[in-house]
Amino acid sequence: MSRVYNFSAGPAVLPVEVLQEAADEMLDYRGTGMSVMEMSHRSKAFDNIIKEAEADLRKLMNIPDNYKVLFLQGGASQQFAMIPMNFMKNRKAGYILTGQWAKKAFSEAKIFGEAVELASSADKTFTYIPDCSDLPITDDMDYVYICENNTIYGTKYHTLPNTKGKLLIADQSSCFLSEPVDVTKYGMIYAGVQKNVGPAGTVIAIIREDLITDDVLPGTPTMLKYKTQADNDSLYNTPPCYGIYICGKVFKWLLKTGGLEERKKINEAKAKILYDFLDQSKMFKGTVEKESRSIMNVPFVTGDKDLDAKFVAEAKAAGFENLKGHRTVGGMRASIYNAMPTEGVVALVDFMKKFEAENTK
Amino acid sequence: MSRVYNFSAGPAVLPVEVLQEAADEMLDYRGTGMSVMEMSHRSKAFDNIIKEAEADLRKLMNIPDNYKVLFLQGGASQQFAMIPMNFMKNRKAGYILTGQWAKKAFSEAKIFGEAVELASSADKTFTYIPDCSDLPITDDMDYVYICENNTIYGTKYHTLPNTKGKLLIADQSSCFLSEPVDVTKYGMIYAGVQKNVGPAGTVIAIIREDLITDDVLPGTPTMLKYKTQADNDSLYNTPPCYGIYICGKVFKWLLKTGGLEERKKINEAKAKILYDFLDQSKMFKGTVEKESRSIMNVPFVTGDKDLDAKFVAEAKAAGFENLKGHRTVGGMRASIYNAMPTEGVVALVDFMKKFEAENTK
Repeated sequence: MSRVYNFSAGPAVLPVEVLQEAADEMLDYRGTGMSVMEMSHRSKAFDNIIKEAEADLRKLMNIPDNYKVLFLQGGASQQFAMIPMNFMKNRKAGYILTGQWAKKAFSEAKIFGEAVELASSADKTFTYIPDCSDLPITDDMDYVYICENNTIYGTKYHTLPNTKGKLLIADQSSCFLSEPVDVTKYGMIYAGVQKNVGPAGTVIAIIREDLITDDVLPGTPTMLKYKTQADNDSLYNTPPCYGIYICGKVFKWLLKTGGLEERKKINEAKAKILYDFLDQSKMFKGTVEKESRSIMNVPFVTGDKDLDAKFVAEAKAAGFENLKGHRTVGGMRASIYNAMPTEGVVALVDFMKKFEAENTK
Repeated sequence: MSRVYNFSAGPAVLPVEVLQEAADEMLDYRGTGMSVMEMSHRSKAFDNIIKEAEADLRKLMNIPDNYKVLFLQGGASQQFAMIPMNFMKNRKAGYILTGQWAKKAFSEAKIFGEAVELASSADKTFTYIPDCSDLPITDDMDYVYICENNTIYGTKYHTLPNTKGKLLIADQSSCFLSEPVDVTKYGMIYAGVQKNVGPAGTVIAIIREDLITDDVLPGTPTMLKYKTQADNDSLYNTPPCYGIYICGKVFKWLLKTGGLEERKKINEAKAKILYDFLDQSKMFKGTVEKESRSIMNVPFVTGDKDLDAKFVAEAKAAGFENLKGHRTVGGMRASIYNAMPTEGVVALVDFMKKFEAENTK
């Protein structure tokens, strides 16, 4: 058994301890005589798993009692429809376009009503977060939507938009649990767990309770109403049990290692190692404006496509996996989520230094 | 590590070999240096996993080339909406009501158009499959919908309905891969995998290609169009990768152990052991009419609630788990899916004999 340094943007690296525990419990979860995969979702054992996962998440994020925590299916892409179906009462909402996922959410919303572009960073290939201090938000908008960390482009909101009193809805998929957030500033936070928390197939949604009602758009399927899952504690139908179980283990790992304040420090220090190197390198350059940089996804280029390809191939041979940038950006991207150890980033920078020396005339 | 005999209706027992392999590969999938949970869904390794899973399923079920195989999310409950949204062109379809899941599909379809009850076995608490040789199917109906095996009530269609030329759509969740089926008789077959195939969170849909079009009801979310997933080989967004991986292992296990012809023989013999006992017992009685019996889910009662409860408690203490019947039926239910070994059923019958002897004056 040998592990690589896995810089995948998602599904992504998970803590080794979590995987080891899951392997140990695979045939017999704590004396139940069965795997969590084989367990009724209405059993006492699974009830404990899902309740503990929720309680640990509430502790980690300091989620107020008037917010519901839901475990859903269908990925962020399904949320792109569920959000307007559940919240677009006036059939109008504002979207801030900071990358591909925000754009997809925006396009999907147009199926259901008027989606208004409030701001965009498309002019510079989404390499920055636009100024959101005075957006053209109108009174009839139901919410303001953001993608808080942009996996592909490597940007992150470091200040939340001024929504002028409107609900803020945020896709946090690629920054979820990477640092503390003030949940009360949001109407809804959601995240596909396959980046920072668990295996693909589970979405966690944290929604202010008063927003969850039966007043949804006509033609909304039962499964796509938040109220259906909220009323049934995410057990309206069989949930993705095994995914929730792994998420629960990751929550415990985060609590044990100091919670989100500590995690933020670790993540910032880890990202700094890479950014500091990029800022002084003559070969590698970060692609994002400094004040918009993500501490989770770090895209960079050499400016030479062949050299990029050579780097990715040699890095792979040396045990650094998934450094190729997204097809829409090119170059490289190192996703350095919670479970990427600092040693992984140090080793990557060492490798980049060596590559730069070897490939500089 | 000790395993129980797990008679859960779903999520349900999986083959021990499959779980053992998954445990062994948890930290390092075949030299990739990562878990399947940590793997990009666009990686070569995962591409192999999903393609092999599909190829093995096609082999197992002899799926013709003009049928698409999709791996979806959201459970059967989401299919209840997707089916009318994608196929109810005339806004009218026929439903045969043989239990709770058929009824739920029927209710959901009413959100989108006219759902017509073609037949029902509600008059006898769904203990039989109605005669479907001459149903009141009209020419404007888009499809005829059945739940082919009724998990809660323990019934199974042994003859498919005469749909008078209309498309047949079948929920096979609790009989999927339990025996060979003639795929060409269906417009669509689907199954939540958490009963016979894998962990909850994946639905497999097998759909005749010509039925998959952009002509869906207005307001259908992108993720709820079969065409979205068909055009992208189930990779429009991140699929439930780990679930698909486990399903693939189960397909290989089924192929290795003789395929579906052989599996049918095993399952029929296994069910016969239990039914033969029930038919001669003076204490336990099967609740289903003989010609409608499922070989996957076997409900039975003693006729005395206290005795039922005593049986379930003593069985549990003896290592027979999840024998309590569904809350809407009461009594007991033994779900004896593919992965339940014959020894498990033999042991259960031995235990029932002993219980009967001890509790008969």
